[in-house]
Amino acid sequence: MATQVHPPRGMRDFLPVDKRRRERVLRVIREAYEHHGFEEIETPVVEDAARLHAGLGGDNEKLAFAIMRRGLTGDDLQAARSPLELADLGLRFDLTVPLARFLSTHRSSLPPVFRAIQIAPVWRAERPQRGRFRQFVQCDIDIAGEPGIAAELELLAATGDALERLGLTGTHIRINDRRVLLAALEHAGVPDAQREGALITVDKLDKVGREGVVAELAERGVDGAALLATLDAIGAGEAPEGFDAATLEPLRELMAAHVGVPLVLDPTLVRGMGYYTGAIFEVAHPDLPFSIGGGGRYDGMVGRFLGQEVPAVGISLGFERLVDLVELPEEDGREVVALLVDKQVPPVEALAIKRALIAQGRTVRMQRRPKNPQGLLDQLVAAGATHVAFVRPGDSAEDLEPKPIS
Amino acid sequence: MATQVHPPRGMRDFLPVDKRRRERVLRVIREAYEHHGFEEIETPVVEDAARLHAGLGGDNEKLAFAIMRRGLTGDDLQAARSPLELADLGLRFDLTVPLARFLSTHRSSLPPVFRAIQIAPVWRAERPQRGRFRQFVQCDIDIAGEPGIAAELELLAATGDALERLGLTGTHIRINDRRVLLAALEHAGVPDAQREGALITVDKLDKVGREGVVAELAERGVDGAALLATLDAIGAGEAPEGFDAATLEPLRELMAAHVGVPLVLDPTLVRGMGYYTGAIFEVAHPDLPFSIGGGGRYDGMVGRFLGQEVPAVGISLGFERLVDLVELPEEDGREVVALLVDKQVPPVEALAIKRALIAQGRTVRMQRRPKNPQGLLDQLVAAGATHVAFVRPGDSAEDLEPKPIS
Repeated sequence: MATQVHPPRGMRDFLPVDKRRRERVLRVIREAYEHHGFEEIETPVVEDAARLHAGLGGDNEKLAFAIMRRGLTGDDLQAARSPLELADLGLRFDLTVPLARFLSTHRSSLPPVFRAIQIAPVWRAERPQRGRFRQFVQCDIDIAGEPGIAAELELLAATGDALERLGLTGTHIRINDRRVLLAALEHAGVPDAQREGALITVDKLDKVGREGVVAELAERGVDGAALLATLDAIGAGEAPEGFDAATLEPLRELMAAHVGVPLVLDPTLVRGMGYYTGAIFEVAHPDLPFSIGGGGRYDGMVGRFLGQEVPAVGISLGFERLVDLVELPEEDGREVVALLVDKQVPPVEALAIKRALIAQGRTVRMQRRPKNPQGLLDQLVAAGATHVAFVRPGDSAEDLEPKPIS
Repeated sequence: MATQVHPPRGMRDFLPVDKRRRERVLRVIREAYEHHGFEEIETPVVEDAARLHAGLGGDNEKLAFAIMRRGLTGDDLQAARSPLELADLGLRFDLTVPLARFLSTHRSSLPPVFRAIQIAPVWRAERPQRGRFRQFVQCDIDIAGEPGIAAELELLAATGDALERLGLTGTHIRINDRRVLLAALEHAGVPDAQREGALITVDKLDKVGREGVVAELAERGVDGAALLATLDAIGAGEAPEGFDAATLEPLRELMAAHVGVPLVLDPTLVRGMGYYTGAIFEVAHPDLPFSIGGGGRYDGMVGRFLGQEVPAVGISLGFERLVDLVELPEEDGREVVALLVDKQVPPVEALAIKRALIAQGRTVRMQRRPKNPQGLLDQLVAAGATHVAFVRPGDSAEDLEPKPIS
């Protein structure tokens, strides 16, 4: 009696054909980033709970999987006032908090401007739904140590190159600047205490439309029409009257550069995380209603751990959202032989033949030959076999010439 | 004031130079295994707690990191009688339990004989000590669906090939068979109830010597001298009087095969895990006092999840134990340019030059040029730069010809 056995809720296994495809796409991304001088690092999948819950992760902190302290006693459970007291570690919910910690740990071993690649899974205890997973891969690049827009330019160029190598044509990057948003709020007369809430509302523009935003802002006592008019003017390339044009300079400089991917100025772009301090980005694909990546400058964050300011800016590609869009050309001519061995051939002889074929540079997938091999052959071809050879009793490697499967 | 910030206890970050080296070594192992027809799969890093604690992980179960249920209340904490009641998931402590679960989940999508590669981290809450980590990488290959020694032969050949490609000459594989061990215990008159304990004692032979083993067995009322004499005879290729020679046949057949790596019969080899049912292996390197890998046949395990027997056998290489032994030749002639840019060059122009060099196939690592660039250059060379170019104001990409660093 077979019981149903699944991976944990919201998480996935990858069969060879999926795993191969994912690794190929990741390799393309990694190579693009490496050409642009980024270097891959790795951090543990867990971080200290206190660090994950330092207020840098926004809403994602609430979604962190918590790891229990070891050696807890019944008394510990009784004494605990909240579950988090029982946890000392947690699975990372993004790659930015670990990077900030990494930069703090290794500052003295890194060059003045450090370009990091992180391609790795993160975990969030989200309510499982279509297209949302509890373990998923992010592809992050970050530049630490460069305060000026040189960093933004390099990031955007590297991202554009990666998207191009993936064949994701039509992708563009929406750009805004947190400093411009804050100046626009001030210009529209939004009181300090309302600014964070107002940004959250503006962030809903895609979902609720202009009227919805104006109505929600009105509830906060904010003149939404004035705010949107200010943002519209900025989007049209004008500094509205009374708006300090100098605030727009970094954004204008960015928009004027050639980075290999179209940049679209979007003064209503907000991005959820509270730690952004300058430019913010969102990667958009024409076929998708949601972004496939995003990022921005977060100059204050590393200092939270290090006690020393380190300017930093990053872009994260959501791998799970883009992997299905990518169509890569067929792989190079690797010869994968389906070796179907008659049941009468002793294992030692089968192995000798297999090893001889491998020594000639082939990949060999051996199976015992069933009476009717067609179904098995079909399965092996679907898994990537390009050639087939049958081994009968008495055959030796010299007798065999694997034939291409047409 | 800089605070000290570290990764969690017993876990490590990898800087680019380490990460690159690790990935290269993993690539060699992966390629060897793929040539032998193994295919990489991936499972989530967490499994359901009930599955991790099903008695298949031996002592490692106690070392599992437990993940707390989400949404626990104070009442839940009060009501819990043990910490594990508060955990529904855990980090995997090996790759065998997840594989058994994977095979159960996907049996119908896999070929009759399935060869899996798993190269992935596992976690154990061990007391941190030199050479022991709480997150570490294992490289496992397993064959499911083949009950005969054909599977053992393929595994050993693939492992031998991987070790050879890594240049780990002098490595050999110690071999034994659990069925032979059990028959030897019976032959030496060890009572059923003492057998498991006796095996644990024999497993200490390397540490406590023959006399220590005999003494410890005597405490259990077991005639250790007789047991060791039986094992010695088997090691010498003899079936002791009264010992069923048929039991030795599979082991003899294995020892007679050419698998590309020396096999050493060791009748005292036990291996810790209780789930082994046939051949057992341990990979030994002459420079190391501990094994760099091991495995064996575990025919009953998948059935525990699936409710249907699936024969399986695997070998796991302990990556952290072998990575430092490996000396790989220099990488192919990738051109990595240290691009040192004068501070007067505008970011947009620096980016244009960088992109032009990348478009020519180069890898470019850009830094602002300090007054005395030697220290920075040394750092960049240590990180892999092969060429250098200086960018002055007014330079364009055509003016630049990166020079090899001698």
